[in-house]
Amino acid sequence: MSESATSFELYAFWRTAATYRVRVALGLKGLQAREINIDLDAGEQRSEAYLKLNPMAGLPTLIHAGHPPMTQSLAILEFLEELQPTPALLPADLHGRVRVRSIANMLAADTHPLITPRVRKYLTSTVGFDDAAWRAWQQHWFVTGLTAAEKRLASEAATGTFSHGDQPGMADICLASVVAVMQVFKIEVPNTPVIERIVQHCQQLPAFAAAAPRLQYGAPTP
Amino acid sequence: MSESATSFELYAFWRTAATYRVRVALGLKGLQAREINIDLDAGEQRSEAYLKLNPMAGLPTLIHAGHPPMTQSLAILEFLEELQPTPALLPADLHGRVRVRSIANMLAADTHPLITPRVRKYLTSTVGFDDAAWRAWQQHWFVTGLTAAEKRLASEAATGTFSHGDQPGMADICLASVVAVMQVFKIEVPNTPVIERIVQHCQQLPAFAAAAPRLQYGAPTP
Repeated sequence: MSESATSFELYAFWRTAATYRVRVALGLKGLQAREINIDLDAGEQRSEAYLKLNPMAGLPTLIHAGHPPMTQSLAILEFLEELQPTPALLPADLHGRVRVRSIANMLAADTHPLITPRVRKYLTSTVGFDDAAWRAWQQHWFVTGLTAAEKRLASEAATGTFSHGDQPGMADICLASVVAVMQVFKIEVPNTPVIERIVQHCQQLPAFAAAAPRLQYGAPTP
Repeated sequence: MSESATSFELYAFWRTAATYRVRVALGLKGLQAREINIDLDAGEQRSEAYLKLNPMAGLPTLIHAGHPPMTQSLAILEFLEELQPTPALLPADLHGRVRVRSIANMLAADTHPLITPRVRKYLTSTVGFDDAAWRAWQQHWFVTGLTAAEKRLASEAATGTFSHGDQPGMADICLASVVAVMQVFKIEVPNTPVIERIVQHCQQLPAFAAAAPRLQYGAPTP
């Protein structure tokens, strides 16, 4: 299938893990999207116009010309996989697919939603978290998620150069997205050598390298 | 494909939303699983034996005889869909599929992970939440997730008797799972008439009815 560069629009922000995931998947599939910046720090995700596209006030939203807005990064990854099956983000066999999706969900569903702006807002405004308490919260959930993922990646025979065999896929995208956000926030999770190795391999690939938060529109100059 | 009743084992607890989702999906597919109880209130999910199956200490874990343990409810739902495609939990068309997966993720990935036992543990032990603060937290995230889902379901043309057309699917399973847990915790989210209508339709189906938390092993007697 051939998709022209203008057939996708991605509502995006430079540092979000979920936007990173979609950028990488588009890149691996050889698809391009015109990006529209939604400044999370300015609260643009809660504007009336954006809420019509994404009532959860989350990023990203992907628009495929002529179709309803698509939200939720894991759903979008599955969509891109079905739209353009090669290169595959999921292995062909049933039990391999559930493994990759499970690792992806450990990061994207059980870890990342805990450190999003909407959670930060509640914890700082309603609970009274200061910067240190927020940092401890972030650290705790990154450690919980990555330590559990490390345990699997280090012990399961299906792990290869990447999370599952020697081709990058959905689990790697989610892993690298969480690590990318950790780097933005200067948070480190100790004792995760397999994850470090896998993410280094990912970052050598053009699709991952091009999605690095610091390279995106709106990123602070170093 | 024919699966005997003993080919699946489900590590489960009576009230968890993620276990509910897998119970419903197995039921809709006509598959059966032998259940093994993991008492969350007693912390059994953190036993060494269980962490070997599920390093995230989450429920459920599904064992398909002869294969590695399967974790993460959304990954398991996708597995069951691929193992036994009928009745389908996802529509056939690409844009329908992304819609259903997106609504499923709004509930299962962006809402439910915020109110799990591991989050409760951190908020009560480390942050010092009392019962009222925890209840307010639960309420806030249920309201956020369900209100956003309601907005979509009420406004999008694809909504039918169920979340997407007139057959129950993955979005309905996630929606009903969150409502089931809210009922356990006696939490109500106002102004969600479409969700209420859809969940009532779900609960009339045997697979949903049989998954009701109060009917499971270990549920308190009323």
